[in-house]
Amino acid sequence: MIKIVVDGFGGDGSPDIVVKGAIKATKELSDLHIVITGKEDVLLNLLKENGYDPNRFTIVDAPEVVEVNAPPTVEFKKKPDSSMVRAFDILRKEEDVAGLVSAGSSGAVLTGGIFKLGRISGVSRPAFAPIFPTMGGKMVVLCDSGANAECKPINIAHFAVMASQYFKAISKEENPRVGLLNIGAEEEKGNTQYKEFHEYLKKVKDINFIGNIEGFDIMADKCEVVVCDGFAGNIALKSAEGAIKFMNTMLKKEIKASFWAKIGAVTFMKGALTSLKKNLKKYVDKGAVLLGCKKLLVKAHGNSNENVFCDVILQTAELASAGLCEKIAKEFETYEFPETE
Amino acid sequence: MIKIVVDGFGGDGSPDIVVKGAIKATKELSDLHIVITGKEDVLLNLLKENGYDPNRFTIVDAPEVVEVNAPPTVEFKKKPDSSMVRAFDILRKEEDVAGLVSAGSSGAVLTGGIFKLGRISGVSRPAFAPIFPTMGGKMVVLCDSGANAECKPINIAHFAVMASQYFKAISKEENPRVGLLNIGAEEEKGNTQYKEFHEYLKKVKDINFIGNIEGFDIMADKCEVVVCDGFAGNIALKSAEGAIKFMNTMLKKEIKASFWAKIGAVTFMKGALTSLKKNLKKYVDKGAVLLGCKKLLVKAHGNSNENVFCDVILQTAELASAGLCEKIAKEFETYEFPETE
Repeated sequence: MIKIVVDGFGGDGSPDIVVKGAIKATKELSDLHIVITGKEDVLLNLLKENGYDPNRFTIVDAPEVVEVNAPPTVEFKKKPDSSMVRAFDILRKEEDVAGLVSAGSSGAVLTGGIFKLGRISGVSRPAFAPIFPTMGGKMVVLCDSGANAECKPINIAHFAVMASQYFKAISKEENPRVGLLNIGAEEEKGNTQYKEFHEYLKKVKDINFIGNIEGFDIMADKCEVVVCDGFAGNIALKSAEGAIKFMNTMLKKEIKASFWAKIGAVTFMKGALTSLKKNLKKYVDKGAVLLGCKKLLVKAHGNSNENVFCDVILQTAELASAGLCEKIAKEFETYEFPETE
Repeated sequence: MIKIVVDGFGGDGSPDIVVKGAIKATKELSDLHIVITGKEDVLLNLLKENGYDPNRFTIVDAPEVVEVNAPPTVEFKKKPDSSMVRAFDILRKEEDVAGLVSAGSSGAVLTGGIFKLGRISGVSRPAFAPIFPTMGGKMVVLCDSGANAECKPINIAHFAVMASQYFKAISKEENPRVGLLNIGAEEEKGNTQYKEFHEYLKKVKDINFIGNIEGFDIMADKCEVVVCDGFAGNIALKSAEGAIKFMNTMLKKEIKASFWAKIGAVTFMKGALTSLKKNLKKYVDKGAVLLGCKKLLVKAHGNSNENVFCDVILQTAELASAGLCEKIAKEFETYEFPETE
C-alpha cells in the first residue's frame, strides 16, 4: 500500500477539486490510500457526494487554512491546526505516509519541508525541480526553479546530484547530462557567481557535467538536467511559460482572423492543436517536486483542475514506489563533494 | 541626409547579405547614405553585382575581420584594420555619421561602444534593449539583455531612464510603465540584490515604476519597459526564444502527423501560421539597440538575411531621425538620481 497525505485546503479550487482529484486517483491506483487534511465536515460531505470508498481515505480534521500571500513561517506558527501544517505533522510522524501533495503556495511547501519534515542528511538546500518537454519529444528537469534565491557552489552541486537521481527515477536514462544555465556556452561566461558554479561543478564526481547551456538550450535536448540558482531558474521557467502562453494566444487570434478560419478550416486544425496542448500539458501540469527532504513533497499548480490534481497524486505515488528519497539519501551518505575555498 | 556606418564583415552571411541588405535600405530610404567597411575589392564587386548607386555608398577598406568567439578587447587591439574597428573609428570621427549597424558579436559591439565611441555623460553602463511583442498586440522593451552580467542599483535606474526614452521614441506612449523583473510580484520578493534594485527604483523620479513583474508578465502587457541586470535579462530573453522555437517545432510536427493534415488541411492553416510568423518576426528580427553610447549602436542577429539586415538599417536611421541619443543625453544632463548608501 502507498499512503499519500493531501492538503485538502490548498489551491484555488480547494477543497472541491482536491477531493475529486483524490477520489479519481484512488480509482486509478488500487493500492493507494489517501490521508486528507482540512475541515472534517466539509471534506466528509464532499467525499460522500463524490462517491468515495471509506476504506481508501482517512480524514484528519484541520479547521484552519494557511493564507497564500502571507509569510509562510508566520502562518505555520500561527496556524498549527491548518490543513497544510497538519499534513506536514502526519507526514513527519507516520512512517508509512510516503509523500505530501499540496496546491498551496510554494513558500509554504518549502517552509514545511525544511522546518517540519527536515532535509535528507547531507543536503544543504532543498530545491524545486519542475519538468519541461523538449523539441525531441523527451523531457528535461530544471533545478532550482525558485526555492533558493541565493546560492553557493555547493548548493548547485547538490541540485545536480539530486536532479540526476530524479531524472534516473523517471526515465531510462542512466547517465543524464547536467548543464549549468548561463548566459553563454563558453566556460568563462557569466557573472562572478556563475563562474564559481562552473568551476565547482567541474570538480564534482559522478555527475555528467557538460558545461554551460543558454536559455534557448533548455528545451533543445542539450542535456537532461539543468541546474541554476532559484532566481535564474524562476526567471527561465516563467519566461518560457509566458512565451508559450503568448504563442497560444497569438495562434488563436490568427486562426480567428484568417480567411480560411471563416470558412471552417478551424475544424481541420483542431486535431493538431488539441494534440499539441495535450502533449504540453503532460509536463506543464505535472507537480514540481521539492528535492532534498526526507519524504516526497510535490507542489501542484494552484489552479489545477481535478484531473491534474489526480495526476500529481499518481506522480507522487510513482516516485514513492521508485524510492526517490531513499536513493537521494543513499547518494548523499557516500558522496564526497570537493572542498570549497 | 542620414549617414549610417555598416560593418561589412560581421555576421554569418557577411559580406554578401550585408551588401544586399544595405542596397535594399538605400532603395527604401531616399536620404540614406551608407558607409560600409571591409575588404574593399570584395565589397566593390558585390556592390556592383547587386546594382548599387555609387552616390549612396562610401567604401572604407578594412582588410581584417574580428573573430566572433575571441575576446573582443583583445581582438580590437590586435586588429585596428578590421571592419568592426574601422566602423567604430568612422562613427567616432565623422560627425555626420549617426549610427552603426553590425551583425558581429554583441561583445564586440559593446567593447566598441564603451572603448571606442564612449558613453553619454552621466550614463554608468550602456545596456542592450531588445523588443518583445505582447499578447495585446503591443510591444515591450527589455533592458538589459546581456551587456552587464553584474549590476548595482544605479545601473538599473539608468536602464529604466534610457529604456523609457527609447520606448517613447518608438511609440506614442508618453509615460511608459517600468517593471522590475523579479521572482514574485510582492515588494519583498527576490534576492538581496533585487530587493535593493526595487528600493532604489522607488526613489527614482520621473519614471513610471510599477513594481516587480515576473517572467510570465513580460509579454502580458503589464508594462512597456522591463528592467533587470544583464544576467537575468539574458536568461529571460533566451528562455522565451527557446520556448517560441519549441512551440513552432511542435506545431509543425503535430500538423504533419495529424489526420486532417494528411487530407490537405495544412493549406487551410498556412494563412494563419504565416501571419503569426510575420508578426513575430517584426520584433524578433529587429536589432537590439545598445542604449547609453554617444551615437546609435544596433546589433543585428548574426543569422540575419538581407531583408532583416535592411530592416535593422532602417530601424537605426529612424532612431537617428528621432534623435534618441540626444534625448537620452538631455535626460542625463539634468537627472538627479537618489544617493546610494
